[in-house]
Amino acid sequence: VENLRWIQGGVTAAKGFVAAGIAAGIKRSRKPDLALVAVAHPAAAAAVFTTNRVQAAPVLISRARIRRGCAQAVLINSGCANCLTGPVGMRDALRLGRATAKALRIVERDVLLASTGLIGRRLPVARVERAVPRLIAQLGPAGHAEAARAILTTDRRAKEAAVEAVIGGRACRVGGMAKGAGMIAPSMATMLCVLTTDAAAPARWLGGLLREAAEETFNRLSVDGDMSTNDTVFLLAGGGSGVAVRPGTAGARTFARMVTAVAGRLARLMAEDAEGGSRVMEVEVVGGRTEQEAQACARRIAGSLLVKTMLAGGDPNVGRIAAAAGSSGARFDPQALEVHIGPQRVVARGAALPLGAAVARRLVSRPAVTVRVHLHAGRGAGRMLTCDLTEEYVRINARYHT
Amino acid sequence: VENLRWIQGGVTAAKGFVAAGIAAGIKRSRKPDLALVAVAHPAAAAAVFTTNRVQAAPVLISRARIRRGCAQAVLINSGCANCLTGPVGMRDALRLGRATAKALRIVERDVLLASTGLIGRRLPVARVERAVPRLIAQLGPAGHAEAARAILTTDRRAKEAAVEAVIGGRACRVGGMAKGAGMIAPSMATMLCVLTTDAAAPARWLGGLLREAAEETFNRLSVDGDMSTNDTVFLLAGGGSGVAVRPGTAGARTFARMVTAVAGRLARLMAEDAEGGSRVMEVEVVGGRTEQEAQACARRIAGSLLVKTMLAGGDPNVGRIAAAAGSSGARFDPQALEVHIGPQRVVARGAALPLGAAVARRLVSRPAVTVRVHLHAGRGAGRMLTCDLTEEYVRINARYHT
Repeated sequence: VENLRWIQGGVTAAKGFVAAGIAAGIKRSRKPDLALVAVAHPAAAAAVFTTNRVQAAPVLISRARIRRGCAQAVLINSGCANCLTGPVGMRDALRLGRATAKALRIVERDVLLASTGLIGRRLPVARVERAVPRLIAQLGPAGHAEAARAILTTDRRAKEAAVEAVIGGRACRVGGMAKGAGMIAPSMATMLCVLTTDAAAPARWLGGLLREAAEETFNRLSVDGDMSTNDTVFLLAGGGSGVAVRPGTAGARTFARMVTAVAGRLARLMAEDAEGGSRVMEVEVVGGRTEQEAQACARRIAGSLLVKTMLAGGDPNVGRIAAAAGSSGARFDPQALEVHIGPQRVVARGAALPLGAAVARRLVSRPAVTVRVHLHAGRGAGRMLTCDLTEEYVRINARYHT
Repeated sequence: VENLRWIQGGVTAAKGFVAAGIAAGIKRSRKPDLALVAVAHPAAAAAVFTTNRVQAAPVLISRARIRRGCAQAVLINSGCANCLTGPVGMRDALRLGRATAKALRIVERDVLLASTGLIGRRLPVARVERAVPRLIAQLGPAGHAEAARAILTTDRRAKEAAVEAVIGGRACRVGGMAKGAGMIAPSMATMLCVLTTDAAAPARWLGGLLREAAEETFNRLSVDGDMSTNDTVFLLAGGGSGVAVRPGTAGARTFARMVTAVAGRLARLMAEDAEGGSRVMEVEVVGGRTEQEAQACARRIAGSLLVKTMLAGGDPNVGRIAAAAGSSGARFDPQALEVHIGPQRVVARGAALPLGAAVARRLVSRPAVTVRVHLHAGRGAGRMLTCDLTEEYVRINARYHT
């Protein structure tokens, strides 16, 4: 997008935000597992949460706190989801929030919480509580990289992004970090993500904007179709840049593009880092009777195990794409169906076109593959991002220990 | 069920039916790939087909022909789905039906057709047509085993079942054969299956009964959630036993149980033979607000990749079961959720119970595992049959050649 500039700095790129990440002893591996993002004054805040009926304790707490529209810190742990832990899990989460608020000398309800990791096990709460002062001692603008590392589970790489743009003559920034490589699902915010900005904006407006950005990015990403109990995206607007975004202005549109750009980059990084994934596939559906039908069709193709294993094998079995489209609920004339893989047309008027074996193999053996389906039934369009399903995915998930 | 007796004989167990299977040269492997089931006089006939919008040529033809309520032969080939083949695929299928009718000296429209195998490639129609007389020369009551073998694709084992029961003082039989190991999906008839009976019954009534039986059996089976373009279940009632089933009588209820028993056995054989599968999982959901919600919940759990990989690893990660239940759309209080694996309660009042590692491993390392979820929200119940997702599944499907 025209005047956006990609910059370094992740979740602390925005002026006023500090972060830290340490190993608090939740993971047996002794890898970093506790992260904090904070800002000097309460920031306008919004969030999107999982729609799963089973929700982790930190999700329940953060959901209640965010209604007030402000927050000053986000405490995240990996290595334990603190979900399916009953009343004791709620007490554990509240206790960690309280310890954080006390050490930061801020209002308890201004602390947001998120957890990720194994479901059904308690946090080693005393050990984590003891680690909080050490975590806070590390807080700083350079802490973004350690914080991004401390929220990972099966991810291979930390995921950070930040952009800068000029609004009303002044530079402002949106940055963020995310985690997520599995249990990434076809509906609702699909992982943990913290977005920060040094622009100021009304919390309620930020909420709408965040939902739209999530819809365009995280919600169009599917790794395995499983929906987590802990999915959370936070957006904190601290105002440190002096830029005030007013809804309805050109500046607001620029700001929305900034948020969507950072969210989109983080979603792409998640697809590239998907558990066991070796290549990314973009599915684009056009010509749907409605937007909804085109999106459902893209979602179905992206979620098909047979399409995803085909992609792992690097072998373009176009029948699987057509079968997935046909079972998506989208209405279309099968004799008008058209499919492209990359620049190559592979199905025309509902019939598979003969391809040389060499051409065929080349089509789906790139690191990023685009499948474009034309339903010829209207003007609806949809899009999804996914990855292949490999033996490695099964290995990882068959052995993710209880 | 009380007076049903399991017998040998598969699709020719019912008096009057003959079958054969040969290698017609469709598969490169030279394995059997062409099967025929026939009966001396036109039989009352019903069918259930895929609801996929993309349907193979033989599905389109059989769907039109079955409306007349009668049939005398079923020609099935494996090795090629004859789908996504456009008008030429329709001509190929019609030509094979015509050749079969001519050689059998029966009415062309009394020949039903089905195909299974790779989508998007033409049948070697001349070669298959030349093989038809040889196929017909092999027809006989002993041909059921060869026919059952000739319809397989990635299946490891042929699938046959038959039962006998007494209706109105006379013995009658229902038998069948099926294929299906992958592309087995959560809605609608999920593979190819031919059921035959020597009872007589009105075709329209048979249709309703077959839909109900499929709903209870094949439609509750999910291997990979992918819905085929070729799924077909045929039921032919030849009347050779002299038993006439009258709707609404006790005999009709016995007959319905016979059909459901054979379909259920064949569905179970498919689950056990699922691509790459090493164990079968039965998911039972009780306490749903409605039947629909309980069934949706069972379907979601059975379809979850994380649950299926957990099963492959033999490691009971109960959080994945709860997360799948929570994302199914079924309404329930997460703090009332209860889960059993086999006889062991693993989640109570929405919290995971601590299990010893040895106990935990034992729970999901049997060849057949039962997961029972109680939603405590009403009286609705649902049930699904599935299998684990293994590295072998990925290997098979990444390499299924184009």
